[in-house]
Amino acid sequence: MIDYKLHIPGPVNVSDETYQAMSTPVMGHRSQDFVALYQSCQPNLKKLFQTEDPVFLSTSSAWGVMEGSIRNLTKKKVLCCMCGAFSDKWLDVSRRSGKEADGLQVDWGRNIDPGELRNQLSSGQYDVVTLVHNETSCGMMNPLLEIMEVLRDFPEVISVIDTVSSFSVVPIPKDDWGIDVILTGSQKALAMPPGLALLSVSERAFARAEQVEGRGYYFDFLEFRKNHEKGMTPSTPVIPLIHALNHTLDKIFKEGVEERHQRHSDLNGMVHAWVESKGFELLPEKQFASKSLSCVKNNLEIDLAGFVDTLRREKKISIDGGYGKMKGKTFRISNMGDESTDTMAHLLGQMDEILPRFMAS
Amino acid sequence: MIDYKLHIPGPVNVSDETYQAMSTPVMGHRSQDFVALYQSCQPNLKKLFQTEDPVFLSTSSAWGVMEGSIRNLTKKKVLCCMCGAFSDKWLDVSRRSGKEADGLQVDWGRNIDPGELRNQLSSGQYDVVTLVHNETSCGMMNPLLEIMEVLRDFPEVISVIDTVSSFSVVPIPKDDWGIDVILTGSQKALAMPPGLALLSVSERAFARAEQVEGRGYYFDFLEFRKNHEKGMTPSTPVIPLIHALNHTLDKIFKEGVEERHQRHSDLNGMVHAWVESKGFELLPEKQFASKSLSCVKNNLEIDLAGFVDTLRREKKISIDGGYGKMKGKTFRISNMGDESTDTMAHLLGQMDEILPRFMAS
Repeated sequence: MIDYKLHIPGPVNVSDETYQAMSTPVMGHRSQDFVALYQSCQPNLKKLFQTEDPVFLSTSSAWGVMEGSIRNLTKKKVLCCMCGAFSDKWLDVSRRSGKEADGLQVDWGRNIDPGELRNQLSSGQYDVVTLVHNETSCGMMNPLLEIMEVLRDFPEVISVIDTVSSFSVVPIPKDDWGIDVILTGSQKALAMPPGLALLSVSERAFARAEQVEGRGYYFDFLEFRKNHEKGMTPSTPVIPLIHALNHTLDKIFKEGVEERHQRHSDLNGMVHAWVESKGFELLPEKQFASKSLSCVKNNLEIDLAGFVDTLRREKKISIDGGYGKMKGKTFRISNMGDESTDTMAHLLGQMDEILPRFMAS
Repeated sequence: MIDYKLHIPGPVNVSDETYQAMSTPVMGHRSQDFVALYQSCQPNLKKLFQTEDPVFLSTSSAWGVMEGSIRNLTKKKVLCCMCGAFSDKWLDVSRRSGKEADGLQVDWGRNIDPGELRNQLSSGQYDVVTLVHNETSCGMMNPLLEIMEVLRDFPEVISVIDTVSSFSVVPIPKDDWGIDVILTGSQKALAMPPGLALLSVSERAFARAEQVEGRGYYFDFLEFRKNHEKGMTPSTPVIPLIHALNHTLDKIFKEGVEERHQRHSDLNGMVHAWVESKGFELLPEKQFASKSLSCVKNNLEIDLAGFVDTLRREKKISIDGGYGKMKGKTFRISNMGDESTDTMAHLLGQMDEILPRFMAS
């Protein structure tokens, strides 16, 4: 059993109440009791996704539905917007799924430029675009509204937007912005354990799926819709996480969605202020910095491995020492989930206490 | 929250201790603490699967890896052995995954005949066979050893064996019997909540997967193997269920695997005796009857819906009133998981109390 608190950018710390909700006894997934559970989540899910489309529950991590979206929607070719570890990987996953795909690549930490996206789409080659809204690996949040405005001019292009680490952190009005497929996972800002993915699919995307062969079954959007209409999932679902979701939705609406957004923004601001006060710099430009986590350049060249390790061992808090090729060059601090001014102040205070030991002398 | 005990054939009743294990705090899935958890399960998993091959943990229901197996292994054509709702569906799922597939169909409740399978395979058309060992929809257990003996004569045919409701109930020595892919789910005899699938893959199957395009990422066997070697999973795993698995494996080896098999056989025998004493009949022939659940013909033409409903409402026990087209014509009683002589005697006693009310007059 771990003896430290998670401030990595997911999985994040899970509250005792959420674990308690997960321990609600399971029922048969074809029973009326399951239908009642499934349907009780829907009104809150629709409000949170800001959509009239159904919201599906997938027993998988987000990668399952990221691959599934490619298999459901691609007739011609996918354009993958690439700006970090997860968005880069989507190109590879698309090709492994037997689809033609190109990348629109920028350096890690940079944002996707809406004008450049427009140029690419103007070729007429593409019928699907993938975008990671908030690149968790780089702490960079793409300008989604501007990107969706570009996509509005390409009606045959279906948009698939990964909001794994931005969902419920900032407003993402799915219907207003014209997002076709929006997807997220349970273990980031929703502060549940991993194992459940959520997605909402537009009529346009269903119409596309109807024309695509080889969608399979497990992630088939039309199968999700057919079962949704009965208040069920296509396959046996991860019921404990649906109990946890129901609890989490109640908690979110008790706090208020706008208040939740403001809280994340405030807590994120505390981290930004700390970063600046120490002489560190954020990896992305400030205007594209994520509101849910901070990816900090190791411009002071501290002994980052030692810092992260000591924080965990002595102070019982785990932050991240850099993802993939950014290991040692950046560190990442999450302010997702149930964090408060007090818990973030505690984290920053603990980092303050040990940081001097790891500064280059 | 439900107020009844599950005796349906999955999900089955989950113990408080298992829920407690699920509430062990989650960790980062790329951390050494996760590696330690993953690796601590492996020796027991290998013993339980009776294999030297790796055992993978898939964050999905069994259908995910059933579809994944088709995508990983099929170059030519799949032969689906069809003898109930789940095995029948595998043909449809194979075709939806863009693969050519035929069915070897028998009536629901009948077993797959090894001689007939040999005839079909002799055509040389097939390179994958799917079989549901224990058809949960019909309470019928196929003669797996005899079937594997047939498959031994067709070395280019990869076997995919679903043991969703027989795993840990009867001995299934994977390596000895030459099973290529064996898969199961968490919510049947393992008595965990749904959301985790387990599978073990042979060298022959990996070699085949290396030759197959379009495997994708989420269920890619080679990706599972690559991550397994680091003590990890390809995507963020459903960590609470891995904690529960670790607990469950300890419990199984504390009881003893042979003792566990014997217990299931004994409890199943109690149900069979009850069935006979009432004048009911099992759907399958006795020698092919499942050891984990009993599928009982409604030959006495009782008001089955009323019986099942009253048992749940008055006696707080849920059994199943028939799957799919068998609704009303059969009922199913599980003896999977943590059941004991006492709990089964209680169930049968409660059924005795109310049954007379629903007999045809």
